[in-house]
Amino acid sequence: MSIEPKCLEDLIKEFASLPSIGQKTARRLAYHILTRTSGDVEHFAQTLNDAKQKVHACPSCHCFTDQEICPLCISRRGTKSLCVVEKSSDIVPFERAGIFKGLYFVLGGVISPLDGIGPEQIHLPQLVQRIKDESIEELVLALGSSPEADSTALMIDRMLSGENVRRTRLARGIPMGSDLEFVDEVTMLRAFESRVSL
Amino acid sequence: MSIEPKCLEDLIKEFASLPSIGQKTARRLAYHILTRTSGDVEHFAQTLNDAKQKVHACPSCHCFTDQEICPLCISRRGTKSLCVVEKSSDIVPFERAGIFKGLYFVLGGVISPLDGIGPEQIHLPQLVQRIKDESIEELVLALGSSPEADSTALMIDRMLSGENVRRTRLARGIPMGSDLEFVDEVTMLRAFESRVSL
Repeated sequence: MSIEPKCLEDLIKEFASLPSIGQKTARRLAYHILTRTSGDVEHFAQTLNDAKQKVHACPSCHCFTDQEICPLCISRRGTKSLCVVEKSSDIVPFERAGIFKGLYFVLGGVISPLDGIGPEQIHLPQLVQRIKDESIEELVLALGSSPEADSTALMIDRMLSGENVRRTRLARGIPMGSDLEFVDEVTMLRAFESRVSL
Repeated sequence: MSIEPKCLEDLIKEFASLPSIGQKTARRLAYHILTRTSGDVEHFAQTLNDAKQKVHACPSCHCFTDQEICPLCISRRGTKSLCVVEKSSDIVPFERAGIFKGLYFVLGGVISPLDGIGPEQIHLPQLVQRIKDESIEELVLALGSSPEADSTALMIDRMLSGENVRRTRLARGIPMGSDLEFVDEVTMLRAFESRVSL
């Protein structure tokens, strides 16, 4: 005999289906929900539905937006620089740092033949088209540091070899505040290879 | 200018209001929700509302149930033994281990004068009443190991000093599979004090 009501079990399952939430945390969250007021829980449910219904991909840069075109694309700030990220949430740390003044392009993934993801499954053709259409002058590739991200960056570089567009990628090295003792070998190797003159 | 749509920000706030979910995990969960199908998200929202609307406290043992009285109380199994737990979710590990064949009583917290929680704020009077009404023979106190839980257990023990009911509490010691090197001092002290003959 299950000691938990069916609808509570269902809620635990829903929480456990989220990334980084295990069975124990899911149970904790579900029991927590039951201690909230009905109004609170209804608001949570409504917020879930609202976000899903109102948010869609910007047709120009593919980032998540609730407008017809996202505010960044509408602003048309620094249209000659384009920063390519893997997913919409990768834009957040850039904007928080406030360092990049151009526009973004969400690729929607990286090429991974083993997972059946080729150039057509992500927005690669649209990226190349946009670079040509809008005479982009600098393309900053900010695609993470996996082997798949590296080969995707390489492919983008090759596809643009005939174009007059400067291609850069984010520097790799020791992150701020980290203790050298705990830096992994690959990061160490890259930081050493890319050492700069004082 | 915020780069995230308002409804997405709201969803991040909702997730961040849950226990053990920080700002970064909340953002990750909210972006994950946007990648789900509309049907999936509606189901999640519905499950939240269902759980909150259907689940309430059992009038007899105060555990969460969607029935008028919870299945365990209805079963009336081992009615002479009562296990007192702090919250409804504490019943789960007992039932999973399948060791206790009596009934449970959810106290709804422990006494904590600094937080303004006295005997009347939790279900202490109801517990004493039930023990008297149902001639309980053994009371197992399973209230966690905080100082507040200890003093609550002590108070229950005193309130029942005139009653013919055996009072026990869970043993304390080294948990299974743990390395002695990593056991904290208080657990070590208690395990040593409660050492048993071979």
